[in-house]
Amino acid sequence: MTLEDLLVKTKNRDVSIAIIGLGRVGLPLASVLANSGFKISGIDANELRLESIIKGVCPFYDPPLQENLEKAIASGNVSVVKNISESSLPNIIFFTVGTPSSGGGTVDYTQLYGALEEVSKFDLKDKMIILRSTMPPKTTEDIIIPYLEDKSSLKCGIDFGLAVCPERILEGKAIKELFELPEIIGGINEISNEIAKEVFLAINPNKEILITTLTGGELAKLFTNIYRYITFALANEFAVWSEMYGVDGSEIIKIANHNYDRCNIPRPGFAGGPCLSKDGTFLDNNTTFTSIVSAAWKLNESIPQHIINSIKKIEVNLFNKKITVLGLSFKSGSDDLRNSPSVKLTEILRSIGANILIHDPYVKSTSSLDESLKEADIVIIATNHKEFTDIKDKINNSNAKIIYDVWSMYQKKDFPNSKYLRLGKAI
Amino acid sequence: MTLEDLLVKTKNRDVSIAIIGLGRVGLPLASVLANSGFKISGIDANELRLESIIKGVCPFYDPPLQENLEKAIASGNVSVVKNISESSLPNIIFFTVGTPSSGGGTVDYTQLYGALEEVSKFDLKDKMIILRSTMPPKTTEDIIIPYLEDKSSLKCGIDFGLAVCPERILEGKAIKELFELPEIIGGINEISNEIAKEVFLAINPNKEILITTLTGGELAKLFTNIYRYITFALANEFAVWSEMYGVDGSEIIKIANHNYDRCNIPRPGFAGGPCLSKDGTFLDNNTTFTSIVSAAWKLNESIPQHIINSIKKIEVNLFNKKITVLGLSFKSGSDDLRNSPSVKLTEILRSIGANILIHDPYVKSTSSLDESLKEADIVIIATNHKEFTDIKDKINNSNAKIIYDVWSMYQKKDFPNSKYLRLGKAI
Repeated sequence: MTLEDLLVKTKNRDVSIAIIGLGRVGLPLASVLANSGFKISGIDANELRLESIIKGVCPFYDPPLQENLEKAIASGNVSVVKNISESSLPNIIFFTVGTPSSGGGTVDYTQLYGALEEVSKFDLKDKMIILRSTMPPKTTEDIIIPYLEDKSSLKCGIDFGLAVCPERILEGKAIKELFELPEIIGGINEISNEIAKEVFLAINPNKEILITTLTGGELAKLFTNIYRYITFALANEFAVWSEMYGVDGSEIIKIANHNYDRCNIPRPGFAGGPCLSKDGTFLDNNTTFTSIVSAAWKLNESIPQHIINSIKKIEVNLFNKKITVLGLSFKSGSDDLRNSPSVKLTEILRSIGANILIHDPYVKSTSSLDESLKEADIVIIATNHKEFTDIKDKINNSNAKIIYDVWSMYQKKDFPNSKYLRLGKAI
Repeated sequence: MTLEDLLVKTKNRDVSIAIIGLGRVGLPLASVLANSGFKISGIDANELRLESIIKGVCPFYDPPLQENLEKAIASGNVSVVKNISESSLPNIIFFTVGTPSSGGGTVDYTQLYGALEEVSKFDLKDKMIILRSTMPPKTTEDIIIPYLEDKSSLKCGIDFGLAVCPERILEGKAIKELFELPEIIGGINEISNEIAKEVFLAINPNKEILITTLTGGELAKLFTNIYRYITFALANEFAVWSEMYGVDGSEIIKIANHNYDRCNIPRPGFAGGPCLSKDGTFLDNNTTFTSIVSAAWKLNESIPQHIINSIKKIEVNLFNKKITVLGLSFKSGSDDLRNSPSVKLTEILRSIGANILIHDPYVKSTSSLDESLKEADIVIIATNHKEFTDIKDKINNSNAKIIYDVWSMYQKKDFPNSKYLRLGKAI
C-alpha cells in the first residue's frame, strides 16, 4: 500500500480513524465522522469519560452533540478505548489532545507527548496523521515530525502523511460548525492535503477547503483567537475608561457601532476560557517587543479584581460579607470552568474573607438560585447565561445592598433599592 | 428670541450657520449644508485656503467634494471670511478646527482656543454651538463650557445651546458619508439635541440620530478610531510574527478571515494619518494601567523602522543607495501627508544617508514615476494607491535589487530579477 492507495480508500470511506483525546474538540469530531460513515476508535486516558461515552452520554453540556452522539453510538461505528493498542488498527489518526498553558504561561505539552508515545507504538507506514490541537508555531516542524521520524525510522510525507487542521468551532456549536466552517489544511505535502481534504468532505461535500503550510495552519488558528481576545480586551479597556469619566461605556460602545461598518467593538465583560486567554501566550512568549497581546492579557485578567475594587468603593470591607455569584462558567450556556474569570473572582473574594454562594444552572455542584440569593449582601451577575435575563424580582427580594452586573444585562432602574454597578459604569 | 424660537427657525432653514475651520472636516460640511439650503459663513485663518475656496477649487484632493463645492458656490449660499466679525451674524456655529497632537503626544488646543476667542467676540445669546472636532474626553465640560460662560456671562443650555457631534467620515468619502452615516449628538440638554438634530436632518431627512451625553459624544468618536487603530496594529504584529516564523502573514490572515464570521483581521500595512494614531493618546495619557493603546501605538509607529531593518538584512549599508519611495500620503487615493508613516520612512532613510526619490500621483511636489525609478537600487511601495497596482514592468525595468511591498500588492513571481519582500514575509 501507498499514500495514494490511502487517498482512494479515504474517498471510499473505507478507512478506520483513531481520535486521540475525546474532549470538547475530539468528541464532536468523532461523533460527526462516525455519522459520516467512518469506523471510529476514540482514545482517551480518562476512564470516567469513556464510560459515559459508551453509554451514549456526552460528558459535558452540549445538547446538539448529545443528540449526534446517540446516533453515532447506535450506528455501531464508534468504539472507545484507553490505548491505541486496543483499537482496531487505524489508517488515519487525529490528535485532539489539550495543549493547556502551564503556570508560567508556557505551553504544557504533556498530553501531546502522551499522544506521540501512543502513536509511536504502532507501524505508521502509509498512515495519515492530522493535528487538530492548538499549538505554538513550529511545534509540528520542530517537535512532532522529528519525534515521529525518529521513533519510526520513517520519512514524513513519503512513508506517512501529516497535516495541521486546526479546530475553530465555538463550544456549544460544535456540530453545526463542523458542517459549516471552512477547513484549514496545512499538510506537509500535496498527498497529505488531499487525504485530509477527503476526510472533511465526507462530513460535508460542500465544505470550503483552505490550503496552507504546517506553520500557516498553526498560526491561522492563533491569529483567529488572538484577534477576538484583543477586541474583548479593548472593550474592557473602554469600559474602564468610561468608568473613569463617569459615563456608561456599554451605551457608548453601542452608539459607536450602530450602523457604522468600520466599528464592531464587542460588549465589555469577562474574557477567559480554555482557549482565548492562553493562545496569545503561544506567540507572545517568543517576542521581544512590547506586544499588544500581553497588554490585552494583563487587562482581561485584571477585570475580576477591578470589579472587586469597584464594589469596595461602596462596601469597604468584604470580610464576612455574603456575596452571591451568579454564573461560574466562562461563557453563557456552558459548564466549562477552565480559566473562567468568574472562578478567579470567587477565589479572590474568598481569599479576602467573603462568604461566597454560587449558583450556575449549568454547573451541578452549585446552589440553587433561591438558596444562593438568601440573605445576600452583594449579588454579582458574572456569566451571561440566558437563565439570568429575567431574575430581577428574585434579586430584588434578596435585599442585597449592591448588584454588580458584569454583562450589562440590566438597567439601574431594575434595582430601585440597591446600588447598581456594571462593568463600564461605576457608581 | 429663545432657543425654542431658534429650533423653529432651524426647522425652516431660516438660520445662518458659521463653520470655523475649513479643513477636511469643515469644508465638506459647509458645502453640504449650503446645498441643503442654509446660508453658510466659512471661517478660516488660512488665506490661501480661502482664496482657493472662493474660486470654487477644493484646496485638497477630493473629487466628489470638488463637485459638491462648485454647486454650493454657485448657489450663492456660501461666503468665506477670515474672522467671525466679517461674517453675517450666525445663529449656529460649528467648531471644525483641528486638534492635532503636540510633540509629546498631548493634545494641541491652539486652534480650539482660537475658535473660542473668535466666538466670544460676539453675543452668544440664543445661539447654538456644535462641536465637531475630535477632543479628549471632558474637553467640553472642563474647558469649552466654562470658557464660554465666563466670557459671555451667559449660561450654557439656558442662554445658548451646545452639542458634541463628532465627525466620523472617511477622507475621500466625506460627501457620501455626510448623507449616509448616523449622526451622534451629545447635547447639554434636550433643546440643544433638538436644534442639532434639525441641522443634520436638513442634509438627509432619513439620517439616523443617536443621542448621548457631552462626554459620550467625545468618547464615541475616540472608541471608533481606537478600535480601528488597534486592529491595524494587531495585523502588523501578526505580520512581524509571521516574518519571525518564515511564513507569509498576509496569506495566513486571509485564510483566518475567510468565511469565518468571528475573525476580521485587516491587511498589514502602514497605520498613521492625522486621526487614528493620535486619538488613542487622548485616552491613553490619562491612564495609569498598561494600555493596549500604547502597545499598539508603539507597534504601528515602529513599522517604518522595521521595514528598513528588513531591507538592511540584504543590503547592510544604505548610505548613498538610491531608494525610490512610491507613495507619500498616509492612505490610498489621498494627498494627506499628516503623520504619514511613509513620510517617517523617508525621514529615517535620509538620516542614514540614503538618496531618496519620491513619486506620489496625488502629491504635486514629487517626481514622476519614470523619473523616480531611474537607476533605483531599492524600490519601496509605501502607499496602496490604485495607480500602483499595475506598474511591475516599470519597476522591473529599473533593475532595482530589492523591492519592498508594504501593502502586499504584488507576488514574489512578479519581480523575478529582484529580492522581493513584503510586510509579513521576510526574505
